[in-house]
Amino acid sequence: MIKHITQNDIHTMEQRQRARLINSLSGFKSANLIGSQSDTGVTNLAIVSSVFHLGANPALIGMIIRPDTVPRDTLSNIKATGVYTINHVNSLIWQQAHQTSARYPEEQSEFEKVALTEQFETGINAPFVGESQVKFALNLREIKPLEINGTVLVIGEISHIVVPDIAIAKDGYIDIEALDTIAISGLDSYHTTDRLGRLSYAKPDVQLTKISVDGEAC
Amino acid sequence: MIKHITQNDIHTMEQRQRARLINSLSGFKSANLIGSQSDTGVTNLAIVSSVFHLGANPALIGMIIRPDTVPRDTLSNIKATGVYTINHVNSLIWQQAHQTSARYPEEQSEFEKVALTEQFETGINAPFVGESQVKFALNLREIKPLEINGTVLVIGEISHIVVPDIAIAKDGYIDIEALDTIAISGLDSYHTTDRLGRLSYAKPDVQLTKISVDGEAC
Repeated sequence: MIKHITQNDIHTMEQRQRARLINSLSGFKSANLIGSQSDTGVTNLAIVSSVFHLGANPALIGMIIRPDTVPRDTLSNIKATGVYTINHVNSLIWQQAHQTSARYPEEQSEFEKVALTEQFETGINAPFVGESQVKFALNLREIKPLEINGTVLVIGEISHIVVPDIAIAKDGYIDIEALDTIAISGLDSYHTTDRLGRLSYAKPDVQLTKISVDGEAC
Repeated sequence: MIKHITQNDIHTMEQRQRARLINSLSGFKSANLIGSQSDTGVTNLAIVSSVFHLGANPALIGMIIRPDTVPRDTLSNIKATGVYTINHVNSLIWQQAHQTSARYPEEQSEFEKVALTEQFETGINAPFVGESQVKFALNLREIKPLEINGTVLVIGEISHIVVPDIAIAKDGYIDIEALDTIAISGLDSYHTTDRLGRLSYAKPDVQLTKISVDGEAC
Protein backbone atom coordinates (compact mmCIF):
# COMPACT_ATOMS: atom_id res chain seq x y z
CA MET A 1 0.00 0.00 0.00
CA ILE A 2 1.20 3.50 -0.77
CA LYS A 3 1.60 5.60 2.34
CA HIS A 4 1.14 9.38 2.39
CA ILE A 5 2.98 11.15 5.18
CA THR A 6 1.92 14.77 5.72
CA GLN A 7 3.82 17.69 7.21
CA ASN A 8 1.77 17.29 10.37
CA ASP A 9 2.75 13.59 10.61
CA ILE A 10 6.40 14.65 10.30
CA HIS A 11 6.05 17.26 13.05
CA THR A 12 4.45 14.85 15.51
CA MET A 13 6.75 11.88 14.85
CA GLU A 14 9.10 10.61 17.57
CA GLN A 15 12.44 12.43 17.13
CA ARG A 16 14.76 9.50 16.27
CA GLN A 17 12.15 7.92 14.02
CA ARG A 18 11.83 11.22 12.14
CA ALA A 19 15.62 11.50 11.84
CA ARG A 20 15.84 8.01 10.29
CA LEU A 21 12.93 8.66 7.92
CA ILE A 22 14.03 12.08 6.69
CA ASN A 23 17.66 10.94 6.35
CA SER A 24 16.45 8.20 3.97
CA LEU A 25 14.71 10.60 1.60
CA SER A 26 17.57 12.37 -0.15
CA GLY A 27 18.63 9.07 -1.79
CA PHE A 28 22.06 7.43 -1.62
CA LYS A 29 24.76 9.53 0.02
CA SER A 30 28.51 9.65 -0.29
CA ALA A 31 30.54 7.92 2.43
CA ASN A 32 33.61 9.97 3.30
CA LEU A 33 36.07 10.28 6.17
CA ILE A 34 37.20 13.83 6.92
CA GLY A 35 40.81 13.98 8.16
CA SER A 36 42.03 17.04 10.06
CA GLN A 37 44.31 18.06 12.91
CA SER A 38 44.27 20.68 15.64
CA ASP A 39 46.90 23.40 15.88
CA THR A 40 48.55 21.30 18.61
CA GLY A 41 48.73 18.31 16.24
CA VAL A 42 45.92 16.08 17.55
CA THR A 43 44.56 14.27 14.51
CA ASN A 44 40.84 13.76 13.96
CA LEU A 45 38.75 11.57 11.70
CA ALA A 46 34.99 11.84 11.20
CA ILE A 47 32.57 10.10 8.86
CA VAL A 48 30.42 12.57 6.93
CA SER A 49 27.60 11.66 4.51
CA SER A 50 26.89 15.20 3.33
CA VAL A 51 29.89 15.79 1.04
CA PHE A 52 28.77 17.02 -2.40
CA HIS A 53 30.16 18.31 -5.68
CA LEU A 54 29.89 22.10 -5.96
CA GLY A 55 31.86 22.89 -9.12
CA ALA A 56 34.75 21.71 -11.26
CA ASN A 57 36.44 25.03 -12.10
CA PRO A 58 37.47 26.02 -9.51
CA ALA A 59 37.33 22.49 -8.10
CA LEU A 60 35.01 22.99 -5.12
CA ILE A 61 33.48 20.50 -2.68
CA GLY A 62 30.79 21.34 -0.14
CA MET A 63 29.80 19.58 3.07
CA ILE A 64 27.22 20.25 5.76
CA ILE A 65 28.29 20.12 9.40
CA ARG A 66 26.02 20.42 12.40
CA PRO A 67 28.20 22.20 14.99
CA ASP A 68 26.56 20.53 17.98
CA THR A 69 27.22 16.93 16.80
CA VAL A 70 30.35 14.81 16.60
CA PRO A 71 32.10 16.45 13.61
CA ARG A 72 32.47 19.60 15.77
CA ASP A 73 36.20 18.86 16.31
CA THR A 74 36.54 18.60 12.53
CA LEU A 75 35.05 22.06 12.20
CA SER A 76 37.35 23.63 14.80
CA ASN A 77 40.37 21.98 13.20
CA ILE A 78 39.42 23.22 9.74
CA LYS A 79 38.98 26.72 11.14
CA ALA A 80 42.36 26.50 12.89
CA THR A 81 44.49 25.08 10.06
CA GLY A 82 42.49 25.87 6.90
CA VAL A 83 43.21 22.36 5.56
CA TYR A 84 41.43 18.97 5.56
CA THR A 85 41.29 15.72 3.61
CA ILE A 86 38.36 13.75 2.18
CA ASN A 87 38.83 9.98 1.97
CA HIS A 88 36.37 7.55 0.34
CA VAL A 89 35.06 4.80 2.61
CA ASN A 90 35.36 1.31 1.08
CA SER A 91 34.01 -2.13 1.99
CA LEU A 92 37.15 -3.06 3.99
CA ILE A 93 36.82 -0.17 6.45
CA TRP A 94 33.09 0.60 6.63
CA GLN A 95 32.67 -0.51 10.25
CA GLN A 96 35.75 1.44 11.39
CA ALA A 97 34.45 4.43 9.45
CA HIS A 98 31.06 4.22 11.21
CA GLN A 99 32.79 3.95 14.60
CA THR A 100 34.39 7.40 14.08
CA SER A 101 30.93 8.84 14.76
CA ALA A 102 31.25 7.93 18.46
CA ARG A 103 31.81 10.89 20.79
CA TYR A 104 35.50 10.50 21.61
CA PRO A 105 37.10 13.19 23.79
CA GLU A 106 38.77 16.00 21.84
CA GLU A 107 42.29 14.91 22.85
CA GLN A 108 41.84 11.36 21.50
CA SER A 109 42.54 10.61 17.86
CA GLU A 110 39.89 8.56 16.08
CA PHE A 111 42.68 7.13 13.88
CA GLU A 112 44.04 5.34 16.92
CA LYS A 113 40.68 4.42 18.44
CA VAL A 114 39.34 2.77 15.26
CA ALA A 115 42.72 1.52 13.99
CA LEU A 116 43.03 3.37 10.70
CA THR A 117 46.39 4.56 9.39
CA GLU A 118 47.44 8.21 9.31
CA GLN A 119 49.15 9.07 6.04
CA PHE A 120 50.89 12.41 5.63
CA GLU A 121 51.97 13.99 2.36
CA THR A 122 54.60 16.74 2.15
CA GLY A 123 53.16 20.21 2.50
CA ILE A 124 49.67 19.10 3.55
CA ASN A 125 48.79 19.87 7.16
CA ALA A 126 46.10 17.19 7.54
CA PRO A 127 46.17 13.37 7.66
CA PHE A 128 44.89 11.14 4.83
CA VAL A 129 43.49 7.66 5.55
CA GLY A 130 46.06 5.08 4.41
CA GLU A 131 43.37 2.44 3.77
CA SER A 132 41.31 4.71 1.50
CA GLN A 133 41.83 4.34 -2.25
CA VAL A 134 40.46 7.70 -3.40
CA LYS A 135 41.46 10.73 -1.34
CA PHE A 136 42.18 14.39 -1.73
CA ALA A 137 43.21 17.44 0.25
CA LEU A 138 41.35 20.74 0.33
CA ASN A 139 42.05 24.30 1.33
CA LEU A 140 39.18 25.96 3.18
CA ARG A 141 37.54 28.62 1.02
CA GLU A 142 34.43 29.55 2.97
CA ILE A 143 32.32 28.67 6.00
CA LYS A 144 28.71 29.69 5.39
CA PRO A 145 26.32 29.52 8.35
CA LEU A 146 22.85 28.33 7.33
CA GLU A 147 20.65 30.24 9.77
CA ILE A 148 17.61 28.17 8.79
CA ASN A 149 18.69 25.27 11.04
CA GLY A 150 22.03 26.19 12.58
CA THR A 151 24.16 24.01 10.32
CA VAL A 152 27.19 25.28 8.41
CA LEU A 153 28.19 24.78 4.79
CA VAL A 154 31.96 24.24 4.54
CA ILE A 155 33.38 24.92 1.07
CA GLY A 156 36.89 23.75 0.17
CA GLU A 157 39.01 23.87 -2.97
CA ILE A 158 40.78 20.66 -3.99
CA SER A 159 44.55 21.07 -3.83
CA HIS A 160 45.90 17.52 -4.22
CA ILE A 161 44.34 14.24 -5.39
CA VAL A 162 45.71 10.75 -4.62
CA VAL A 163 44.19 7.90 -6.67
CA PRO A 164 45.38 4.67 -8.41
CA ASP A 165 45.97 5.61 -12.05
CA ILE A 166 44.43 2.36 -13.28
CA ALA A 167 41.00 3.64 -12.22
CA ILE A 168 41.18 6.93 -14.15
CA ALA A 169 39.43 6.58 -17.52
CA LYS A 170 40.83 8.25 -20.63
CA ASP A 171 38.07 10.83 -20.48
CA GLY A 172 38.76 11.79 -16.85
CA TYR A 173 36.05 9.72 -15.12
CA ILE A 174 37.26 7.83 -12.03
CA ASP A 175 35.82 4.32 -11.65
CA ILE A 176 35.08 4.65 -7.94
CA GLU A 177 33.10 1.39 -8.01
CA ALA A 178 36.23 -0.52 -9.07
CA LEU A 179 38.04 1.19 -6.19
CA ASP A 180 35.41 -0.25 -3.83
CA THR A 181 33.93 3.10 -2.75
CA ILE A 182 30.61 2.53 -0.97
CA ALA A 183 27.41 4.52 -0.45
CA ILE A 184 25.22 5.27 2.58
CA SER A 185 21.46 5.32 2.99
CA GLY A 186 19.70 6.76 6.00
CA LEU A 187 21.84 7.19 9.09
CA ASP A 188 23.51 3.80 9.31
CA SER A 189 23.11 1.61 6.20
CA TYR A 190 26.10 0.90 3.94
CA HIS A 191 26.01 -0.35 0.34
CA THR A 192 28.36 -1.55 -2.38
CA THR A 193 27.33 -0.82 -5.99
CA ASP A 194 26.90 -2.49 -9.39
CA ARG A 195 27.15 -0.37 -12.52
CA LEU A 196 24.09 -0.23 -14.78
CA GLY A 197 26.17 1.72 -17.30
CA ARG A 198 27.57 5.04 -18.36
CA LEU A 199 25.44 7.08 -20.79
CA SER A 200 26.34 9.50 -23.58
CA TYR A 201 25.75 13.24 -23.23
CA ALA A 202 22.00 13.84 -23.66
CA LYS A 203 20.70 15.95 -26.56
CA PRO A 204 17.06 16.61 -27.54
CA ASP A 205 15.70 13.99 -29.96
CA VAL A 206 18.97 12.02 -30.13
CA GLN A 207 18.95 8.42 -28.88
CA LEU A 208 21.19 7.93 -25.83
CA THR A 209 23.93 5.32 -26.14
CA LYS A 210 25.75 3.35 -23.49
CA ILE A 211 29.44 4.18 -23.28
CA SER A 212 32.19 2.01 -21.81
CA VAL A 213 33.67 2.68 -18.38
CA ASP A 214 36.54 4.23 -20.32
CA GLY A 215 34.17 6.70 -21.98
CA GLU A 216 34.17 5.12 -25.42
CA ALA A 217 31.25 4.13 -27.63
CA CYS A 218 30.27 0.49 -27.13
CA MET B 1 50.58 2.98 -9.54
CA ILE B 2 49.31 5.74 -7.29
CA LYS B 3 48.84 9.00 -9.14
CA HIS B 4 49.20 12.41 -7.51
CA ILE B 5 47.29 15.20 -9.20
CA THR B 6 48.24 18.68 -8.07
CA GLN B 7 46.26 21.92 -8.12
CA ASN B 8 48.31 23.02 -11.12
CA ASP B 9 47.42 19.78 -12.99
CA ILE B 10 43.75 20.50 -12.26
CA HIS B 11 44.01 24.08 -13.55
CA THR B 12 45.65 23.07 -16.83
CA MET B 13 43.42 20.04 -17.56
CA GLU B 14 41.10 20.06 -20.59
CA GLN B 15 37.72 21.40 -19.40
CA ARG B 16 35.48 18.34 -19.94
CA GLN B 17 38.15 15.99 -18.60
CA ARG B 18 38.39 18.11 -15.47
CA ALA B 19 34.58 18.12 -15.10
CA ARG B 20 34.48 14.30 -15.26
CA LEU B 21 37.39 13.91 -12.84
CA ILE B 22 36.20 16.39 -10.22
CA ASN B 23 32.61 15.12 -10.44
CA SER B 24 33.91 11.63 -9.53
CA LEU B 25 35.60 12.77 -6.33
CA SER B 26 32.71 13.50 -3.99
CA GLY B 27 31.73 9.78 -4.00
CA PHE B 28 28.35 8.30 -4.90
CA LYS B 29 25.60 10.83 -5.45
CA SER B 30 21.84 10.71 -5.14
CA ALA B 31 19.82 10.32 -8.37
CA ASN B 32 16.70 12.44 -8.26
CA LEU B 33 14.22 13.95 -10.69
CA ILE B 34 12.98 17.41 -9.80
CA GLY B 35 9.37 18.01 -10.86
CA SER B 36 8.06 21.55 -11.20
CA GLN B 37 5.74 23.67 -13.32
CA SER B 38 5.69 27.23 -14.60
CA ASP B 39 2.98 29.71 -13.61
CA THR B 40 1.37 29.00 -16.99
CA GLY B 41 1.27 25.26 -16.21
CA VAL B 42 4.15 23.92 -18.36
CA THR B 43 5.58 20.98 -16.44
CA ASN B 44 9.32 20.39 -16.16
CA LEU B 45 11.47 17.47 -15.09
CA ALA B 46 15.22 17.60 -14.50
CA ILE B 47 17.71 15.07 -13.15
CA VAL B 48 19.81 16.48 -10.32
CA SER B 49 22.66 14.66 -8.54
CA SER B 50 23.30 17.31 -5.90
CA VAL B 51 20.30 16.74 -3.61
CA PHE B 52 21.40 16.34 0.00
CA HIS B 53 19.99 16.00 3.52
CA LEU B 54 20.16 19.27 5.46
CA GLY B 55 18.20 18.52 8.61
CA ALA B 56 15.35 16.42 9.99
CA ASN B 57 13.57 18.97 12.21
CA PRO B 58 12.49 20.99 10.33
CA ALA B 59 12.73 18.44 7.48
CA LEU B 60 15.02 20.30 5.06
CA ILE B 61 16.60 19.20 1.79
CA GLY B 62 19.25 21.16 -0.10
CA MET B 63 20.27 21.04 -3.75
CA ILE B 64 22.80 22.92 -5.84
CA ILE B 65 21.72 24.39 -9.17
CA ARG B 66 23.97 26.08 -11.69
CA PRO B 67 21.71 28.75 -13.24
CA ASP B 68 23.38 28.63 -16.66
CA THR B 69 22.82 24.87 -17.20
CA VAL B 70 19.75 22.78 -17.99
CA PRO B 71 17.97 22.88 -14.60
CA ARG B 72 17.51 26.65 -15.12
CA ASP B 73 13.80 26.13 -15.96
CA THR B 74 13.49 24.20 -12.70
CA LEU B 75 14.90 27.19 -10.84
CA SER B 76 12.52 29.71 -12.49
CA ASN B 77 9.56 27.42 -11.81
CA ILE B 78 10.51 27.01 -8.16
CA LYS B 79 10.83 30.77 -7.84
CA ALA B 80 7.44 31.27 -9.55
CA THR B 81 5.38 28.67 -7.64
CA GLY B 82 7.38 28.03 -4.46
CA VAL B 83 6.77 24.28 -4.81
CA TYR B 84 8.63 21.29 -6.31
CA THR B 85 8.86 17.52 -6.01
CA ILE B 86 11.87 15.20 -5.59
CA ASN B 87 11.48 11.71 -7.10
CA HIS B 88 14.02 8.88 -6.69
CA VAL B 89 15.40 7.46 -9.94
CA ASN B 90 15.20 3.65 -10.14
CA SER B 91 16.64 1.01 -12.48
CA LEU B 92 13.51 1.00 -14.69
CA ILE B 93 13.76 4.69 -15.61
CA TRP B 94 17.47 5.56 -15.40
CA GLN B 95 17.87 6.19 -19.13
CA GLN B 96 14.76 8.36 -19.32
CA ALA B 97 15.98 10.20 -16.24
CA HIS B 98 19.36 10.88 -17.89
CA GLN B 99 17.61 12.11 -21.05
CA THR B 100 15.94 14.94 -19.06
CA SER B 101 19.36 16.62 -18.99
CA ALA B 102 19.03 17.44 -22.72
CA ARG B 103 18.37 21.12 -23.48
CA TYR B 104 14.69 21.02 -24.42
CA PRO B 105 13.00 24.37 -25.17
CA GLU B 106 11.26 25.96 -22.18
CA GLU B 107 7.76 25.35 -23.60
CA GLN B 108 8.34 21.58 -23.98
CA SER B 109 7.67 19.26 -21.05
CA GLU B 110 10.39 16.70 -20.35
CA PHE B 111 7.66 14.37 -19.04
CA GLU B 112 6.32 14.08 -22.57
CA LYS B 113 9.71 14.03 -24.32
CA VAL B 114 11.12 11.17 -22.19
CA ALA B 115 7.76 9.41 -21.64
CA LEU B 116 7.42 9.59 -17.88
CA THR B 117 4.05 9.98 -16.18
CA GLU B 118 2.91 13.18 -14.50
CA GLN B 119 1.19 12.45 -11.20
CA PHE B 120 -0.65 15.21 -9.35
CA GLU B 121 -1.75 15.11 -5.72
CA THR B 122 -4.45 17.41 -4.34
CA GLY B 123 -3.11 20.72 -3.10
CA ILE B 124 0.41 20.28 -4.52
CA ASN B 125 1.25 22.62 -7.39
CA ALA B 126 4.02 20.45 -8.91
CA PRO B 127 4.03 17.09 -10.71
CA PHE B 128 5.40 13.87 -9.18
CA VAL B 129 6.87 11.11 -11.36
CA GLY B 130 4.39 8.22 -11.50
CA GLU B 131 7.16 5.65 -12.09
CA SER B 132 9.17 6.72 -9.04
CA GLN B 133 8.68 4.70 -5.86
CA VAL B 134 9.97 7.24 -3.32
CA LYS B 135 8.87 10.84 -3.82
CA PHE B 136 8.05 13.92 -1.83
CA ALA B 137 6.93 17.51 -2.26
CA LEU B 138 8.71 20.54 -0.86
CA ASN B 139 7.90 24.16 -0.16
CA LEU B 140 10.71 26.54 -1.06
CA ARG B 141 12.30 28.01 2.07
CA GLU B 142 15.37 29.79 0.76
CA ILE B 143 17.48 30.40 -2.34
CA LYS B 144 21.05 31.15 -1.31
CA PRO B 145 23.43 32.39 -4.04
CA LEU B 146 26.95 30.97 -3.62
CA GLU B 147 29.08 33.82 -4.93
CA ILE B 148 32.19 31.62 -4.96
CA ASN B 149 31.16 30.01 -8.27
CA GLY B 150 27.78 31.42 -9.28
CA THR B 151 25.73 28.38 -8.22
CA VAL B 152 22.69 28.59 -5.96
CA LEU B 153 21.72 26.51 -2.96
CA VAL B 154 17.98 25.80 -3.00
CA ILE B 155 16.54 24.83 0.40
CA GLY B 156 13.08 23.28 0.66
CA GLU B 157 10.98 21.93 3.51
CA ILE B 158 9.30 18.56 2.99
CA SER B 159 5.53 18.90 3.00
CA HIS B 160 4.27 15.52 1.76
CA ILE B 161 5.93 12.09 1.36
CA VAL B 162 4.65 9.27 -0.89
CA VAL B 163 6.27 5.85 -0.31
CA PRO B 164 5.17 2.16 -0.22
CA ASP B 165 4.56 1.36 3.46
CA ILE B 166 6.21 -2.06 3.13
CA ALA B 167 9.60 -0.34 2.78
CA ILE B 168 9.34 1.73 5.96
CA ALA B 169 11.11 -0.04 8.83
CA LYS B 170 9.68 0.03 12.35
CA ASP B 171 12.37 2.49 13.40
CA GLY B 172 11.63 4.94 10.56
CA TYR B 173 14.40 3.94 8.11
CA ILE B 174 13.21 3.59 4.50
CA ASP B 175 14.75 0.66 2.60
CA ILE B 176 15.45 2.63 -0.57
CA GLU B 177 17.52 -0.27 -1.95
CA ALA B 178 14.45 -2.54 -1.86
CA LEU B 179 12.57 0.22 -3.70
CA ASP B 180 15.23 0.07 -6.44
CA THR B 181 16.61 3.59 -5.90
CA ILE B 182 19.93 3.96 -7.72
CA ALA B 183 23.09 6.06 -7.28
CA ILE B 184 25.23 8.15 -9.64
CA SER B 185 28.99 8.48 -9.96
CA GLY B 186 30.69 11.15 -12.01
CA LEU B 187 28.50 12.87 -14.60
CA ASP B 188 26.93 9.88 -16.30
CA SER B 189 27.42 6.55 -14.49
CA TYR B 190 24.45 4.82 -12.81
CA HIS B 191 24.60 2.09 -10.15
CA THR B 192 22.31 -0.26 -8.25
CA THR B 193 23.34 -1.18 -4.70
CA ASP B 194 23.83 -4.17 -2.38
CA ARG B 195 23.55 -3.68 1.35
CA LEU B 196 26.61 -4.47 3.47
CA GLY B 197 24.52 -3.92 6.57
CA ARG B 198 23.03 -1.47 9.00
CA LEU B 199 25.11 -0.67 12.08
CA SER B 200 24.16 0.23 15.64
CA TYR B 201 24.66 3.76 17.00
CA ALA B 202 28.40 4.20 17.68
CA LYS B 203 29.66 4.84 21.23
CA PRO B 204 33.27 5.09 22.44
CA ASP B 205 34.72 1.71 23.44
CA VAL B 206 31.51 -0.22 22.68
CA GLN B 207 31.62 -2.89 19.96
CA LEU B 208 29.37 -2.03 16.99
CA THR B 209 26.72 -4.58 16.09
CA LYS B 210 24.92 -5.21 12.83
CA ILE B 211 21.20 -4.49 12.99
CA SER B 212 18.50 -5.84 10.71
CA VAL B 213 16.99 -3.75 7.91
CA ASP B 214 14.08 -3.31 10.33
CA GLY B 215 16.39 -1.78 12.92
CA GLU B 216 16.45 -4.72 15.31
CA ALA B 217 19.42 -6.52 16.88
CA CYS B 218 20.46 -9.54 14.80
